[in-house]
Amino acid sequence: MNAFFGRRYALSASHRLHCEALTTQQNREAYGKCNNPHGHGHNYIIEVLVGGPVARDTGMVVNLVDLDEAVRTHVLERFDHTNLNLDPLFAVKVPTTENLCREVFRLLEQAMPSGSELEYVRVEETENNFFQYFGEGPREAAR
Amino acid sequence: MNAFFGRRYALSASHRLHCEALTTQQNREAYGKCNNPHGHGHNYIIEVLVGGPVARDTGMVVNLVDLDEAVRTHVLERFDHTNLNLDPLFAVKVPTTENLCREVFRLLEQAMPSGSELEYVRVEETENNFFQYFGEGPREAAR
Amino acid sequence: MNAFFGRRYALSASHRLHCEALTTQQNREAYGKCNNPHGHGHNYIIEVLVGGPVARDTGMVVNLVDLDEAVRTHVLERFDHTNLNLDPLFAVKVPTTENLCREVFRLLEQAMPSGSELEYVRVEETENNFFQYFGEGPREAAR
Amino acid sequence: MNAFFGRRYALSASHRLHCEALTTQQNREAYGKCNNPHGHGHNYIIEVLVGGPVARDTGMVVNLVDLDEAVRTHVLERFDHTNLNLDPLFAVKVPTTENLCREVFRLLEQAMPSGSELEYVRVEETENNFFQYFGEGPREAAR
Amino acid sequence: MNAFFGRRYALSASHRLHCEALTTQQNREAYGKCNNPHGHGHNYIIEVLVGGPVARDTGMVVNLVDLDEAVRTHVLERFDHTNLNLDPLFAVKVPTTENLCREVFRLLEQAMPSGSELEYVRVEETENNFFQYFGEGPREAAR
Amino acid sequence: MNAFFGRRYALSASHRLHCEALTTQQNREAYGKCNNPHGHGHNYIIEVLVGGPVARDTGMVVNLVDLDEAVRTHVLERFDHTNLNLDPLFAVKVPTTENLCREVFRLLEQAMPSGSELEYVRVEETENNFFQYFGEGPREAAR
Repeated sequence: MNAFFGRRYALSASHRLHCEALTTQQNREAYGKCNNPHGHGHNYIIEVLVGGPVARDTGMVVNLVDLDEAVRTHVLERFDHTNLNLDPLFAVKVPTTENLCREVFRLLEQAMPSGSELEYVRVEETENNFFQYFGEGPREAAR
Repeated sequence: MNAFFGRRYALSASHRLHCEALTTQQNREAYGKCNNPHGHGHNYIIEVLVGGPVARDTGMVVNLVDLDEAVRTHVLERFDHTNLNLDPLFAVKVPTTENLCREVFRLLEQAMPSGSELEYVRVEETENNFFQYFGEGPREAAR
Repeated sequence: MNAFFGRRYALSASHRLHCEALTTQQNREAYGKCNNPHGHGHNYIIEVLVGGPVARDTGMVVNLVDLDEAVRTHVLERFDHTNLNLDPLFAVKVPTTENLCREVFRLLEQAMPSGSELEYVRVEETENNFFQYFGEGPREAAR
Repeated sequence: MNAFFGRRYALSASHRLHCEALTTQQNREAYGKCNNPHGHGHNYIIEVLVGGPVARDTGMVVNLVDLDEAVRTHVLERFDHTNLNLDPLFAVKVPTTENLCREVFRLLEQAMPSGSELEYVRVEETENNFFQYFGEGPREAAR
Repeated sequence: MNAFFGRRYALSASHRLHCEALTTQQNREAYGKCNNPHGHGHNYIIEVLVGGPVARDTGMVVNLVDLDEAVRTHVLERFDHTNLNLDPLFAVKVPTTENLCREVFRLLEQAMPSGSELEYVRVEETENNFFQYFGEGPREAAR
Repeated sequence: MNAFFGRRYALSASHRLHCEALTTQQNREAYGKCNNPHGHGHNYIIEVLVGGPVARDTGMVVNLVDLDEAVRTHVLERFDHTNLNLDPLFAVKVPTTENLCREVFRLLEQAMPSGSELEYVRVEETENNFFQYFGEGPREAAR
């Protein structure tokens, strides 16, 4: 695939990074301040990259209204203005940017408007940190 | 005063906007999604503007090391990676951007390096929302 | 007034800068490329600064829902995704950033949620150009 | 190829998204507000990524003056401060970000300074929307 | 004055902060890493705010071409891609952001296109540091 | 590899682009203003992308503390607030963004926390220029 449409969404959420399987000391070493009790929060940016042919008539890869609807119902309504630790997806998994990003990918992968394909999800936790996930399937050799 | 040095600091925190004196319905009307139970979070930017004469020898309004130290000990260590609702300052007051900004102003006002004066504190909650506070004292007519 | 809440809104519009009272040559000198026939366009940012007392119960200067509603009905629905030259406000006046900014100020001034006051409107035409307008009334000496 | 030089250019233009082959209703569904009559506009960012070996003497992938000249003559002079719908390239094709991006790619592909190759063109229509195009040729497996 | 046009310019320069009147130890305390021998550099942003009446015909506070020309000849050609310490203005004065900002103000103050007035110059040294200078004259009470 | 963690670091440095093997005229043609004697400077952004499996317990690709330590000791302490031309790495090579980026890649490649791999280093010299380097090794077909 060689043509991609990207769109960025904002969501605000709180979380605490803490892994039950680790000791207090290990948690502190792994997560630093992000392990503070009672949590803290971020303005996350969710960047979604969608690939597919450009439709000959509309000149678009994906209908924006459909894409927004998919992201709104599957991601924003679920995570925006929430405490991520209380979501069932993070009952066991720690809500790191990595895990949040992969869950968002899985939630969206099946919901893509027909004819388009989810290339990656990128989650920016702050201006200086991000995680980018391309899914598990075999990727084509071409880029 | 006509010369100002500004510096921006980042902090991540969670909060929930909920006022005990208001009904459930009033809380929802006042705060919208920010009233969601369990809270959410933000990457806050704290912008501090400091006025004062430019020292003839160093060419500076304020020593950066001193300013950073004042902000670190009075603001960042207190609020960064915390749940704002659990801070004693917000035991009664709701941790809105407005109240956070005014508390940061009060905490910093007395801590300014000598010879300089706190002109304003500006708190950006997201890229699109901010609150700016110039303190309570009488302001000079000259801007 | 010493406490201000600010909020930023985006709108996309096209315009052409051309003044009937000027010659072709004068138009070119005044507006450069912005005088090109058929127009061009911008992603404008409208920054609104609102002053007022912080309400003791809600901890807010202005209810965000009310402010958004005022801006939406008076400004965004009118100008977003339009050709500014076709708006009656710009039948005679040229839709420069200056004139757009002043018209937005006038449209919003009367629509402010009660208890708050419009301090300024700032219109950013590009990342490098903006115009800021504080209204015509006498301003208080205090900043 | 494993080394890329990127450069970003700004251009302001207006457009209207409307496809003659579609009904009024279909146009509205495909383009939403972007189908408004009389058009609207954007500050576009054109990001160009160029690959090639780093020259041993100059330490550069591409001479910046040459690259700027290619982009200026082939893209900026053609599209900056214009109405995209009036360009012959968009006499039939709708000037969506997708189509603009692919046309920019084609215009630049042949104009690359010798020794360098156009990897992609990315067009950002707003801060939240972009389209990225890698060309039609077979891509190497590497990367 | 209540209406202002702002414009931002970029310049890249190097400097070293070192005051001959101070000891090695005092220089280190005042400037930290900025006192490192051999200098370092920044991408400076120069923001210029210009006040004045909006011309009834053109709808502009200041002709952009004239303003750009004033900034180009008086500021950019002098400081862009230079070592600030070698400028005669900084033969004695240390090229801090404060001093650079005040010199830019003085250079531009006399060069303003007629009918407009320089309100402030703001120099951003990094994304997190800036200095803003309003000149020495008495300011009107009305902001 | 299909999962990547990215992190951005800032450093300020000065440099002059000048190649001994070229004539005065050729240097001017290759580097323009960047060839000015006495140098100039930039706020560089170093973006580091690290790939690897997401650890099942911590939910992280790489421990942030370890990554920061690697970048601090190998890159920031070496280049931040320095004159790049004086670094032994640039005794012969010209400190272009391209060469700086490749040297940073080489310095970091061996220093990656175990289990993770350096995917690319991207150096942004200004908001509009960047260079991105993926290393010399054979790349997997995937992605």
